[in-house]
Amino acid sequence: MSSRGARTLTLAEAAEATGGKVLGDARVTFSRISPVHDAGPGDLALLADRRYAGGLEGCGGGALLVSDPLSGLPGGPRDRIVVPDAHRAMVTLLAMMYAVTPPEPGVDAAAVVHPEAEVCATASVGPGAVIGAGAVVGSGSAVGANCTIGAGVEIGRECVLLPNVTVYPGSVLGDRVVVHAGARIGVDGFGYVLVEDEHVKVPQVGGCVVEDDVEIGANCTIDRGSIGKTRIGVGSKLDNMVHIGHNVVIGTRSLVVAQVGIAGSTRLGEGVVLGGQAGVSGHLNIGAGARIGAQAGVISDIAPGQEVSGYPARDHRAYLKAMANLMRLPGVLKRVRRIERRLAGDKSESGD
Amino acid sequence: MSSRGARTLTLAEAAEATGGKVLGDARVTFSRISPVHDAGPGDLALLADRRYAGGLEGCGGGALLVSDPLSGLPGGPRDRIVVPDAHRAMVTLLAMMYAVTPPEPGVDAAAVVHPEAEVCATASVGPGAVIGAGAVVGSGSAVGANCTIGAGVEIGRECVLLPNVTVYPGSVLGDRVVVHAGARIGVDGFGYVLVEDEHVKVPQVGGCVVEDDVEIGANCTIDRGSIGKTRIGVGSKLDNMVHIGHNVVIGTRSLVVAQVGIAGSTRLGEGVVLGGQAGVSGHLNIGAGARIGAQAGVISDIAPGQEVSGYPARDHRAYLKAMANLMRLPGVLKRVRRIERRLAGDKSESGD
Amino acid sequence: MSSRGARTLTLAEAAEATGGKVLGDARVTFSRISPVHDAGPGDLALLADRRYAGGLEGCGGGALLVSDPLSGLPGGPRDRIVVPDAHRAMVTLLAMMYAVTPPEPGVDAAAVVHPEAEVCATASVGPGAVIGAGAVVGSGSAVGANCTIGAGVEIGRECVLLPNVTVYPGSVLGDRVVVHAGARIGVDGFGYVLVEDEHVKVPQVGGCVVEDDVEIGANCTIDRGSIGKTRIGVGSKLDNMVHIGHNVVIGTRSLVVAQVGIAGSTRLGEGVVLGGQAGVSGHLNIGAGARIGAQAGVISDIAPGQEVSGYPARDHRAYLKAMANLMRLPGVLKRVRRIERRLAGDKSESGD
Repeated sequence: MSSRGARTLTLAEAAEATGGKVLGDARVTFSRISPVHDAGPGDLALLADRRYAGGLEGCGGGALLVSDPLSGLPGGPRDRIVVPDAHRAMVTLLAMMYAVTPPEPGVDAAAVVHPEAEVCATASVGPGAVIGAGAVVGSGSAVGANCTIGAGVEIGRECVLLPNVTVYPGSVLGDRVVVHAGARIGVDGFGYVLVEDEHVKVPQVGGCVVEDDVEIGANCTIDRGSIGKTRIGVGSKLDNMVHIGHNVVIGTRSLVVAQVGIAGSTRLGEGVVLGGQAGVSGHLNIGAGARIGAQAGVISDIAPGQEVSGYPARDHRAYLKAMANLMRLPGVLKRVRRIERRLAGDKSESGD
Repeated sequence: MSSRGARTLTLAEAAEATGGKVLGDARVTFSRISPVHDAGPGDLALLADRRYAGGLEGCGGGALLVSDPLSGLPGGPRDRIVVPDAHRAMVTLLAMMYAVTPPEPGVDAAAVVHPEAEVCATASVGPGAVIGAGAVVGSGSAVGANCTIGAGVEIGRECVLLPNVTVYPGSVLGDRVVVHAGARIGVDGFGYVLVEDEHVKVPQVGGCVVEDDVEIGANCTIDRGSIGKTRIGVGSKLDNMVHIGHNVVIGTRSLVVAQVGIAGSTRLGEGVVLGGQAGVSGHLNIGAGARIGAQAGVISDIAPGQEVSGYPARDHRAYLKAMANLMRLPGVLKRVRRIERRLAGDKSESGD
Repeated sequence: MSSRGARTLTLAEAAEATGGKVLGDARVTFSRISPVHDAGPGDLALLADRRYAGGLEGCGGGALLVSDPLSGLPGGPRDRIVVPDAHRAMVTLLAMMYAVTPPEPGVDAAAVVHPEAEVCATASVGPGAVIGAGAVVGSGSAVGANCTIGAGVEIGRECVLLPNVTVYPGSVLGDRVVVHAGARIGVDGFGYVLVEDEHVKVPQVGGCVVEDDVEIGANCTIDRGSIGKTRIGVGSKLDNMVHIGHNVVIGTRSLVVAQVGIAGSTRLGEGVVLGGQAGVSGHLNIGAGARIGAQAGVISDIAPGQEVSGYPARDHRAYLKAMANLMRLPGVLKRVRRIERRLAGDKSESGD
């Protein structure tokens, strides 16, 4: 948990860095960026989304960073930077303002590192962290306080493990991997066979590989393979409390929103997006670029690029339309009843 | 994890404290309250709900605490206290019986407190806890074993952090906040921008504020603001494994049941109730007093006091009615087919 | 986190142990079992499921373990073991190959064990683990690094607590219980009463009992009883991130898949199976052998052996059929409209 110190910028510097143009006084400075409805003096207020335009009136910010299409709206600070995309410009400015200070290299006196573990001299290990036999921590990596790193774990370069993380023995992390507090990596998968009415555990002896540039949210659980390997592909990002079953393969550059669960042996292609609380059954193939809606329950393969919702998950638009129709069902029932009565009436009349 | 020792009470004392009346022997004592179907000798059996009235027969308790409307039911201990609301009376009695003994003040020898942190003399810090530079722990607060408290964190008075909690740097907790084991407070939000096919992280530099009298369940994750602040309002209670996204504002006195997820920048009014496993999309407004049903998926604003269910969430009663109708749909289909056949028949007849 | 070393076997030994027959060279050895599409030289490739038969072509394994009905498929290693059920045979072989080496008995120098706690001489306590007053750790049990075991906790024989676990005071674990990293056992339940607009906490003073041979997944949360006890029955298995509310009783030999939530006071019979992300409301009875589908939302009692899906949960087949019909609803609407037009037309004609 490295600390950050914010640097002060002028509107002129900020405009130059983001390709924007200054309206008003380019010498105005700021040391914080704040949402337009929250900004105080000395803050650069951000307006990137029309939804928040109401915050312009009475905005207390010292200056305004605004997307071009919204710059004509009334109210807000007079001194401003106008850019094509204020949200994107904010990312550039934040990176300039908040340089990350990594923790001092070295092993804290209150850490417990096994004599057969290998911690690079430029790496850091926080107080209370425990590192097992044969584990390797690469250059510039930081293992947070009270983490437990199992025997034989490999952690690459410039990784950050926030506090209270557990990595089970034999798991492998690439370079620049970020693991948030409380995540569990390489956990036993959920595998049993029924023998005379008892659930007998299938030994979970496979591996768990987290590739380069992956970020794993707080309190996630990632199982290792039963046999074979679980794999999180390069550049994929997992939000908090995501569960990944054994032998799952997540393709590169996928986004998995909070509380998603993916059951064992399912394979995701590149660039898949899963909305919050979605669930995917085991042994499925999810094609590259597929988009699984929030809370969707996927129980069959999904084609590349397909967008699905609901349980069981099906085409997103068709599902929403069907749910809208469902609310009209009482009316349909009434109409069918009316027709039936009318036909019954016709009959009696014709029976005359 | 303070321990509790139970105090023995007489029926007379208990009746006086709860405004109840004693039937039978007022000198009978008890040192535990138990559900009616579980009570043993020396226990005060509780009957607060008609669902459990079957437990009266054969009840082994030494005495009975019963709600007035249920006191005429047959069976159960003869010596009893009759009160208007037995559940409410139980809360009063438990608070008398189980005085909480806070841990001894002081920093455990196996804790690691940064020299620039400030721990009040009346506060306690458990073994293995790590407290960062500039952090403040207020009077009477208890930081549990193996917690990790980041740099600059502020913890108010009489807070209780159970073991293995992580608080990210700069987060602020008010007074009398309870944080259960494994909760993560002030986590990086899930924010990326796509730059040349890579997900580039939006620096998460905002704050996280947990106001007075909030209780946070085990293994919850609460993100800090990206810019701006995440805020959990006074007196709100979160059950286990709740996920709160960045910049979310939870109003005062809200109840959030287990495994709920709330996506970034959504704002809840006062006194909102969210049922278990419900999900709320980002950038929404949930009005004061709204009730979100269990497993509901909210994808648009909810008016104050509204009660919703389902995905996408809509009026609770309308949703349940629609789902009931859905089960009748096969019958409707059959009836429509019958009408069509009949009309086709009419036609052929009329074509005669 | 004990380590494992794999033993090398011949096909002859493996066939004998699993009751299989060898085709080809019985002297071929292997030291790993791998999925058929992943196997390298020296590996015994596994083919237990027709879905993965495509991996036979080009399979790099040194030998093949195959279920009898699939043994006629073309391709794959020539030397092989044919068994009735290859998955079941794999479990037998893995148990032979990967003998679990428990950690050395003894309390690590960096653990903090209260002088009034009792740790059996054959038990082990990892670095950073904290064990409270009056706690008991039985023979052959292992408490992982950075675990926190509260006062008065009882842990039976041959239990394994992986790292970073929390057990609240007074909880009781039977024999051979496995608790994965980050699980929280005996947490306060979610109970409040409204007093003058404030949520006043109901003291949670009951117990939490985890019976013999239970396995609890990573980052699970199990509440203790408010009064009374929460109980997880003999031989039940919980996947990761399962939430169990206060006073819940889970019957023996039940399977609870990842991210399930069960609300307070619900009782499950023997051998219940809950699919991933399912939710069960409080105060319900779920009969023995019931099967709750993934993501189902159960809001009323379920009969023994019943299979349910959806929200609100109802008969599994009826639900899937209803959802299929839902997608045909737009067509039904069109047909009703056509009938109405026709009847309106008839009328106008008959009015001629």
